[in-house]
Amino acid sequence: MELQWIDWLRDRLPRHPHLRLGIGDDAALLRMAAGPDCVVTSDMLMDEVDFRLEECDPRQAGRKALAANLSDLAAMAARPLAAVVSLALPNRPPRGGSPSELAVALVEGMLPLAEQFACPIAGGDTNCWDGRLVISVTALGTTARGAWLRSGAQTGDEILVTGQFGGSLLGRHFDFCPRVAEALYLSERYEVHAAIDVSDGLTLDLARLAAASGRGVLLELAQVPISSAARRMAVQDGRPALDHALGDGEDFELILAVPPAACRRLLDEQPLDVPLTRIGRVIEPAGLWINGPDGQRVPLPPQGYVHGQPP
Amino acid sequence: MELQWIDWLRDRLPRHPHLRLGIGDDAALLRMAAGPDCVVTSDMLMDEVDFRLEECDPRQAGRKALAANLSDLAAMAARPLAAVVSLALPNRPPRGGSPSELAVALVEGMLPLAEQFACPIAGGDTNCWDGRLVISVTALGTTARGAWLRSGAQTGDEILVTGQFGGSLLGRHFDFCPRVAEALYLSERYEVHAAIDVSDGLTLDLARLAAASGRGVLLELAQVPISSAARRMAVQDGRPALDHALGDGEDFELILAVPPAACRRLLDEQPLDVPLTRIGRVIEPAGLWINGPDGQRVPLPPQGYVHGQPP
Repeated sequence: MELQWIDWLRDRLPRHPHLRLGIGDDAALLRMAAGPDCVVTSDMLMDEVDFRLEECDPRQAGRKALAANLSDLAAMAARPLAAVVSLALPNRPPRGGSPSELAVALVEGMLPLAEQFACPIAGGDTNCWDGRLVISVTALGTTARGAWLRSGAQTGDEILVTGQFGGSLLGRHFDFCPRVAEALYLSERYEVHAAIDVSDGLTLDLARLAAASGRGVLLELAQVPISSAARRMAVQDGRPALDHALGDGEDFELILAVPPAACRRLLDEQPLDVPLTRIGRVIEPAGLWINGPDGQRVPLPPQGYVHGQPP
Repeated sequence: MELQWIDWLRDRLPRHPHLRLGIGDDAALLRMAAGPDCVVTSDMLMDEVDFRLEECDPRQAGRKALAANLSDLAAMAARPLAAVVSLALPNRPPRGGSPSELAVALVEGMLPLAEQFACPIAGGDTNCWDGRLVISVTALGTTARGAWLRSGAQTGDEILVTGQFGGSLLGRHFDFCPRVAEALYLSERYEVHAAIDVSDGLTLDLARLAAASGRGVLLELAQVPISSAARRMAVQDGRPALDHALGDGEDFELILAVPPAACRRLLDEQPLDVPLTRIGRVIEPAGLWINGPDGQRVPLPPQGYVHGQPP
């Protein structure tokens, strides 16, 4: 199968100035842009864990695999350079068709994103087996002005988020737009101390940023932007919409820790197409906190998806 | 599980000058060495396809996953920079233990190689599921003097190989040494027009080099170095040892196309610890050829493992 598939891929993948050599040799050659650092990130998505091939269009699964990696690049303020895609294809895809047809659909789901974000698919490895579909994507990027780390938050920084949260299972987990353009725009114009993307849950990823920075975060629950999908899910399952916003995950929005002056500018200027909202502040004591009814800080247990634990 | 595993990994993975930032953030940061190109390659290995977790030590599977990628870097004459490792771990590993324990063993199998070849593990993604183990490794490298491509062979070039071929299933497919040091040594001192590593079968990979170069290869069967493992397998299964050498694959030796003058020097000097053997010549007509009994060229069907086809 691989030969046909590689031929298809070679024909189908657009040429790109990043690629001195793409698919077809033992490895791909990437032209390094300016900047001393190459950023690399990997995400592996599995059938019936990250999507259900019985129910979704495989293009959606392919798109999601690349988009999740691009979201990680965005969280580093990195400009995409290229991606490599490895596949373990089921010999008998659940909704019929051949493994080749499945592979084609997966890549077709990736290509519009790859073009939109100038992130050519540089290569990978294609295999068949009698197991379920596994998609492994590794994305490379470059940073011209230094990457945003999780660990840079300072006491007194304000916590900003892009977009809204919760209910991603209603569709957003497939069609989210990785915040690459937003991150690059902000990194060129504003001081950002730390960042993370929300893949596993707003509070869980916020707690990770806080922990990496050796700080805590005082979260203002009333400020958390709740998506309409979270409100719809709340109607369906009776759980508060805020709970969905705090823990559903796969929002793929950015959490930013910025100094107060930059925060004021950002809230005044709202320079992005997506809204920026202040949801809290970096404080000295470690952990995630909210103000209790009596005005005292109480800890908030982070909610979200922990990889490798049964949902 | 992931938190513990990440903590283990962070403690266990050695610091390395290539890594400005390794595991623990959204992506890793690699210091780019001199040279304009970053080389990237990916291999995905699956349980019961590339190894049998029921029978092997998981360290062997981990080692193989990284070593196969390093062999691809060697085939490009690239100096390893870093690797990222993504895992889909079975909830119940076939030989018992937890997914974490399996992950630890896999990485422990990689670490000696990572150190030996200065290829730090920069990150990745760890997941559990109810499917079988999948290991996806992406390796990055740099080329100071330009990469060896498959497509550079010229008519009149001689075909050289490192090492011996055949019978890798008897052990070599786990304990092979990727020819990184050999490739770097040769690329600095000798003119090499084209190269490929033998993963799927000597004749199959040789045919790929020929096809990528738009040339043919006249193979001298009597010159093919046959491993002792191939001879042992021949005794076991009654097939000629030469057949094993031509098609077994997973030898992870290098095939090189070099101009005649460089070939003479290489054979005279034998500059590597592993023997270099001349096995054929690049000719004009496409395809893989041998000299028949009457002195006329006859085509030789390439043998080897084609990914995605049942073995």
